[in-house]
Amino acid sequence: MKALTLGEIVAALGGELVGDASLEITGIDTLEGASPTTIAFLANPRYRAQLETTRAACVIVAPEMREVAGARGAVIVSAQPYLYYARLTQWWVARERGPTAAGVHASAVVDATATVDPSASIGALAVVEAGAVIGAGAVIGPHCTVGAGASIGPQTRLSAHVTLGAGCRIGARGIVHSGAVIGADGFGFAPDGDRWVKIEQLGAVQIGDDVEIGANTCIDRGALGDTRIADGVKIDNLVQIAHNVRIGAHTAIAACAGISGSTTIGAHCTLAGGVGVAGHLTLVDNVHLTAFTGVSHSVLKPGVYSGAFPMDDNASWEKNAATLRQLYNLRNRVRALEK
Amino acid sequence: MKALTLGEIVAALGGELVGDASLEITGIDTLEGASPTTIAFLANPRYRAQLETTRAACVIVAPEMREVAGARGAVIVSAQPYLYYARLTQWWVARERGPTAAGVHASAVVDATATVDPSASIGALAVVEAGAVIGAGAVIGPHCTVGAGASIGPQTRLSAHVTLGAGCRIGARGIVHSGAVIGADGFGFAPDGDRWVKIEQLGAVQIGDDVEIGANTCIDRGALGDTRIADGVKIDNLVQIAHNVRIGAHTAIAACAGISGSTTIGAHCTLAGGVGVAGHLTLVDNVHLTAFTGVSHSVLKPGVYSGAFPMDDNASWEKNAATLRQLYNLRNRVRALEK
Amino acid sequence: MKALTLGEIVAALGGELVGDASLEITGIDTLEGASPTTIAFLANPRYRAQLETTRAACVIVAPEMREVAGARGAVIVSAQPYLYYARLTQWWVARERGPTAAGVHASAVVDATATVDPSASIGALAVVEAGAVIGAGAVIGPHCTVGAGASIGPQTRLSAHVTLGAGCRIGARGIVHSGAVIGADGFGFAPDGDRWVKIEQLGAVQIGDDVEIGANTCIDRGALGDTRIADGVKIDNLVQIAHNVRIGAHTAIAACAGISGSTTIGAHCTLAGGVGVAGHLTLVDNVHLTAFTGVSHSVLKPGVYSGAFPMDDNASWEKNAATLRQLYNLRNRVRALEK
Repeated sequence: MKALTLGEIVAALGGELVGDASLEITGIDTLEGASPTTIAFLANPRYRAQLETTRAACVIVAPEMREVAGARGAVIVSAQPYLYYARLTQWWVARERGPTAAGVHASAVVDATATVDPSASIGALAVVEAGAVIGAGAVIGPHCTVGAGASIGPQTRLSAHVTLGAGCRIGARGIVHSGAVIGADGFGFAPDGDRWVKIEQLGAVQIGDDVEIGANTCIDRGALGDTRIADGVKIDNLVQIAHNVRIGAHTAIAACAGISGSTTIGAHCTLAGGVGVAGHLTLVDNVHLTAFTGVSHSVLKPGVYSGAFPMDDNASWEKNAATLRQLYNLRNRVRALEK
Repeated sequence: MKALTLGEIVAALGGELVGDASLEITGIDTLEGASPTTIAFLANPRYRAQLETTRAACVIVAPEMREVAGARGAVIVSAQPYLYYARLTQWWVARERGPTAAGVHASAVVDATATVDPSASIGALAVVEAGAVIGAGAVIGPHCTVGAGASIGPQTRLSAHVTLGAGCRIGARGIVHSGAVIGADGFGFAPDGDRWVKIEQLGAVQIGDDVEIGANTCIDRGALGDTRIADGVKIDNLVQIAHNVRIGAHTAIAACAGISGSTTIGAHCTLAGGVGVAGHLTLVDNVHLTAFTGVSHSVLKPGVYSGAFPMDDNASWEKNAATLRQLYNLRNRVRALEK
Repeated sequence: MKALTLGEIVAALGGELVGDASLEITGIDTLEGASPTTIAFLANPRYRAQLETTRAACVIVAPEMREVAGARGAVIVSAQPYLYYARLTQWWVARERGPTAAGVHASAVVDATATVDPSASIGALAVVEAGAVIGAGAVIGPHCTVGAGASIGPQTRLSAHVTLGAGCRIGARGIVHSGAVIGADGFGFAPDGDRWVKIEQLGAVQIGDDVEIGANTCIDRGALGDTRIADGVKIDNLVQIAHNVRIGAHTAIAACAGISGSTTIGAHCTLAGGVGVAGHLTLVDNVHLTAFTGVSHSVLKPGVYSGAFPMDDNASWEKNAATLRQLYNLRNRVRALEK
């Protein structure tokens, strides 16, 4: 990356610089990995000891760390060092990457009835089907498929190999990573004797603004009515969002989670890795699920919920797991003893 | 969608219409979401109260609901309203969508030795390798890869970005959603001291008729002999089917489930979301696994099986999970008390 | 496959042949599935009874089985029959498949600044972006995307639809299956009030030699510094490897596992299917996790660890799971009884 000075950083992002504004910075790093030409940050108190050993040219710190961090070299003081670091990465990337060149790659297959904003970029071998709309500054990566009548908002970026199904919509400033499939059919069948009869999925997927969707994540179209992802939702890799799910604004869902059909998740929730939520449930706002929790009933009270089996050495686990299968009897035996 | 009349619906799908046959219908919806020009259905008794508030032009109901539903407007009476609804969606979509135009898109790369039925459709930028066979009326979506010698049966539809590996076969009337990978190598290695030596996977994948496979689902080719999915199986998104697994007819597998190598699942089973089945097991017909169940031994008796940790508020979970690690000791203490 | 003789097999792979060296072999199979012209192996003692019924022309066996197996027909004696079988499959496939034709398919889009070794093969409709390097004998499958500045080592094979992100590197003799996404952004956000602010992921992914990566598996790029997969690691399908994870040499990870950010897994570990590991943990070498285990703290001692809820019939499970939520109270009641 091109070097820039500490002075340029605070000019762009604010914060109070204590140190030499002309010091050149060539990159961003952790305290542990930093070199004399990189900038690091201290956000989590448990890394405080690394202040003494880091080689960083400058450290972004909270006001209470100004003295101790300043004693070793340049600091940028910010009320929220982690947020400052996030903004620094964005500014850095924007500066390095520059705007993607607008236009349609010669190898892309864009239907004559699609509407592509002149400032959008359509990558190599992408397919944009009939009636699709690609907004201003949007970037469609190589090998993406944008289905008939689908719509992509301004500044939204699709990495390579994204599938956006027919009639689905994603808002502005979204990011969709490779292999994500938005708008496949929901999993719906009616039993007919001992066979399954497909229920055609007539809805679509509606995704708000500022949504990020991880690699190989699936968001199915609704059976009747749409699957809806509100503004600011962040979804990690390999997540399954079934038909007619609704996710409230600014909820974050970590990798390998799965949400079954017609469930509504509130706003500002967090689902950790591997969480599963059954269908037709309601989770209110501000529900936080720890890793591997399986949710089988609605959660109507904000809070932190858990449900993972504790890991143990295999021999202990075998004994405890076997006993667990007699737990109800054990309780009855305790009751009998109590009487 | 184009409007059609209630009379046209019952003419096509049967059922008894009580009401005005000339009433025009513009769409299908839930009781809750219906408008005065849409048709809805009542299949689950717990939604019965919605009959009083729905704005639907017509409701599909079971015979026992004829009176109460008929009191509010037009009804179609069917012995199986949910199945009727499924068939209505299929008929509706067939009517709207019409047949996909036959032919090979100019941008597709089809090997000269592949056999493509003249009535099949090969989408933009698809790849069909040497010796592959594409059946009558089959639809290969954009960006699909059909490997050498693979075979796709009549009327089967592949969405965008499907990979069908060399020598793999899918039967008639199948549906494969985007990102599914059929025929990647199974995960097989022999230890050689402290290294792993790859076992080449010499089998293929054989998929029957009327099978649906979800987005980003993986079905690996067999190590020796083939992985086999029987007729009528329905598989959701992000499911892992390992090498040499066999799935019996009309079994349904929900999202995020995983089945390890050489396991045989019977017919008419259901695996809920997140279920995992270990390798080299046998599950007989009519086994039903609830969400998140891990199966570590064969199941030789039909029935419903479960194994998920119950969710709780985090504080309670922490106490119970910690105690769980002493459960075996607790049982011994109860035994001692009993003596 | 083309027939070959037992003599040719031992000439190529070693082992002691007891039997007719001119016997022609047309394939490799299991003991159970073998025919009079195929070769099978006996590696696991529990299949020993199949020796009596197999129709195999020849069986690969350990020295202690020489007599009993030899009594029924030809045998190849090897100290490690399973390893012998693995090498036989490799030799067989190399012989059948032959080298992939070198060169760039006419439909591929290769940037003028990319470096493609003349002996490499670039498949139909692949995209190789600016500055990427493709090593000698590497095979890039159809529809692959190799990002700007990415690097693929000699003899490495990418199946169809693989995404290798900008600046990511994979070493020699690797195998990457379809739909794998290497180098998507890690899942990193800083809270800003009630919104999330993206942390740009500035690192890449570094993958060693002899690594195999399964279908639809995701390996995210690092936030700061790189995600690192050491030599000889084997990763199955639908696995999630988050940003800045480090996986030690020759570790094997089965399907549907997930490893959260900044966790370090040692060498020679095995993670069974569905395992989840929380972030910022350390697992030492030779840790083995059984299926569905959730790891929430570091594991500093080699060994076998477990944590799955035992499956039961649904009625028993319901009673035990409900009681589990009172386990801590139950323990206190036992304590009270003891007093």
